[in-house]
Amino acid sequence: MTPPLRPITQEIAVTFRYPVHFTRGLFRPENPLLAQTLARADEAGPKKVLAVVDEGVARHHPELTRHLSAYLAAHPGLELVAAPLVVPGGEAVKNSPETVHALQRAVHTHGIDRHSYLLAVGGGAVLDMAGYAAATAHRGVRLVRVPTTVLAQNDSAVGVKNGVNAFCKKNFLGTFAPPYAVLCDLDVLTTLEQRDWVGGLAEAVKVALLKDARFFDFLEAHAAALRDRDAEAMAWAIYRCAELHLEHIATAGDPFEFGSSRPLDFGHWAAHKLEAVTDYRLRHGEAVAIGIALDATYAHLSGRLPRGDWQRILALFDALGLATYTPELETGALLTGLEEFREHLGGRLTIMLLDSIGRGVEVHDMDHATIRRAAQLLGARAKGETWTQDATFAAAAR
Amino acid sequence: MTPPLRPITQEIAVTFRYPVHFTRGLFRPENPLLAQTLARADEAGPKKVLAVVDEGVARHHPELTRHLSAYLAAHPGLELVAAPLVVPGGEAVKNSPETVHALQRAVHTHGIDRHSYLLAVGGGAVLDMAGYAAATAHRGVRLVRVPTTVLAQNDSAVGVKNGVNAFCKKNFLGTFAPPYAVLCDLDVLTTLEQRDWVGGLAEAVKVALLKDARFFDFLEAHAAALRDRDAEAMAWAIYRCAELHLEHIATAGDPFEFGSSRPLDFGHWAAHKLEAVTDYRLRHGEAVAIGIALDATYAHLSGRLPRGDWQRILALFDALGLATYTPELETGALLTGLEEFREHLGGRLTIMLLDSIGRGVEVHDMDHATIRRAAQLLGARAKGETWTQDATFAAAAR
Repeated sequence: MTPPLRPITQEIAVTFRYPVHFTRGLFRPENPLLAQTLARADEAGPKKVLAVVDEGVARHHPELTRHLSAYLAAHPGLELVAAPLVVPGGEAVKNSPETVHALQRAVHTHGIDRHSYLLAVGGGAVLDMAGYAAATAHRGVRLVRVPTTVLAQNDSAVGVKNGVNAFCKKNFLGTFAPPYAVLCDLDVLTTLEQRDWVGGLAEAVKVALLKDARFFDFLEAHAAALRDRDAEAMAWAIYRCAELHLEHIATAGDPFEFGSSRPLDFGHWAAHKLEAVTDYRLRHGEAVAIGIALDATYAHLSGRLPRGDWQRILALFDALGLATYTPELETGALLTGLEEFREHLGGRLTIMLLDSIGRGVEVHDMDHATIRRAAQLLGARAKGETWTQDATFAAAAR
Repeated sequence: MTPPLRPITQEIAVTFRYPVHFTRGLFRPENPLLAQTLARADEAGPKKVLAVVDEGVARHHPELTRHLSAYLAAHPGLELVAAPLVVPGGEAVKNSPETVHALQRAVHTHGIDRHSYLLAVGGGAVLDMAGYAAATAHRGVRLVRVPTTVLAQNDSAVGVKNGVNAFCKKNFLGTFAPPYAVLCDLDVLTTLEQRDWVGGLAEAVKVALLKDARFFDFLEAHAAALRDRDAEAMAWAIYRCAELHLEHIATAGDPFEFGSSRPLDFGHWAAHKLEAVTDYRLRHGEAVAIGIALDATYAHLSGRLPRGDWQRILALFDALGLATYTPELETGALLTGLEEFREHLGGRLTIMLLDSIGRGVEVHDMDHATIRRAAQLLGARAKGETWTQDATFAAAAR
């Protein structure tokens, strides 16, 4: 018989590299950024581009698809293969397998190959969906993301994930697939609804709390300006948030999340559940703000987070105009979000909490009674009963 | 206004590691390999396993699913979440989005998370399909491949790709997703149809031609034994082929195929087209043998490959019992396979040819007239008109 065949250990190292740019007027004829991004000196021949545009963006910037088409037409090395496809925006598009299929079909029809581009312009949901289509067609065509919301520019669109919802589970289908490039156009933010303008800052608060106390100071100092739509303050807030996010992915040692730890999902176990139980009435940033408020309160009630830090966090959300409470926090369904979160990450439940502003700490279980008390406390605070309730609860917790 | 925000260059290094084992009697109670593979010392709690079995395997090895279930039941750290799902085998399953959806749904229903396992037992098509479902659910659950054909054990199942067909294009949807482990059970090969037993050797001939002249000598020396189902010769042929394949992926510098070069696809441009135009009457290995014969003949007619090497290649296929010709080689449709292959790889057309046995060389175009002459020559040879025609064509080409 055959002698034993020794096992082979396969080891494969893959390096992904992509630039994240911040610009204004991306599709203005005099802006070279897009053309420079798509034209690679080491590749001959014209480059095909399939463009997908978020319907909300197309509506608020009616000139955008025209400018995009004109821009590509003006560059002989680039070929827009069809009029930009306009797709619905917001979470709804992530519940639409038909849209993913339509994009994959367009890749097929127009002969987009692994060296061609899918140029996706829109909010986080559209970029997540288009990213999934791009990552699976031909095992991955080049994806250029043009995020058009605060949330997408400072968080979701700079990272390495995509996803769509299935079986009523958020991001149940998706892949890890770094983009080819990310081009953030700060000009398109001006037309955002106020709730999206401030909602995106929830991720900035999150990353400041976990990684950078000085950035938290910056957000505190500029909270009124940020809320009142100061473009310069917002540009810095987005830039620093994106930078911290990218640094985490590159250096924390687990970019494709093989482990159970996911520090950047601070506040997200409750946030995901709140989005679902409110049928996405709460948008992602709004839900994250409430999720952070809940976990910060929990950390305080458990004796981790000092009272002063806890109050600064809630006060910052107040100053930004972000709610820290919704009645759904007090429904029994919320707690099932913990197990769903564990399942989504895989392995052992791992939740990020705070020891102080700028310093996160991981725990492996959460006390349900304390979560309920934290939710009640935020409810009382929202109804103006803050201080008496606060003392009662804080005493009870000690 | 905001000062310019400098671009951020993101660089992410990801290392993938997985073992490829060769064993016999994988599901026999006394074989510890599967249990050792699934039970990780650094992870607490029972591990969930969802099993998927190729219908052809279940039919030829009726005891297999029972043994699999008993094996997992005997190990307290492992939990088989449901009776193994039996799915159709062969190329048909890659044309079935319903099957992918059913697997994703089972991942959802049974709470399979990123630290649980999808255990897929079957031929290359089932493993490609199941791998796609595993790679996209929760952005990737752990996939343990148990390949049950020569072709899957020595080629497709040891690599980093998965895929299903869409829009009449082979592997149009898929991802690069290294498995968690590959467990090759040599015992299950005994029930293969003869055409699948020898068909899988086409990939061994391929990799020998590209990488290892001594392995070609081995295949030549053992051709009769291999054809006549000598288990030991086959075990060595599979092992060496898998080893060369793995080495190429790990060391050639482009495991996720960002470039246009794909050396291991030698002979495959024609093979993919022949599978499609024969409606998969030709199986993958059979088509690859013909594709290699065509490209070797082309290389000879173009003055690259010496006559002696060319004749050894055709003689080896003869000795193994693999055809080197099918009438579809002489249809006009064949040539459209070149452009489809270019689109699948992306970028510039890049075709691997041979300078000698053991030494491949890349070219960027192929002469259509010479391809037609090569096909005619193989046709004449198949009809027994070999030597006269051969001299004529060889003279014509010089």
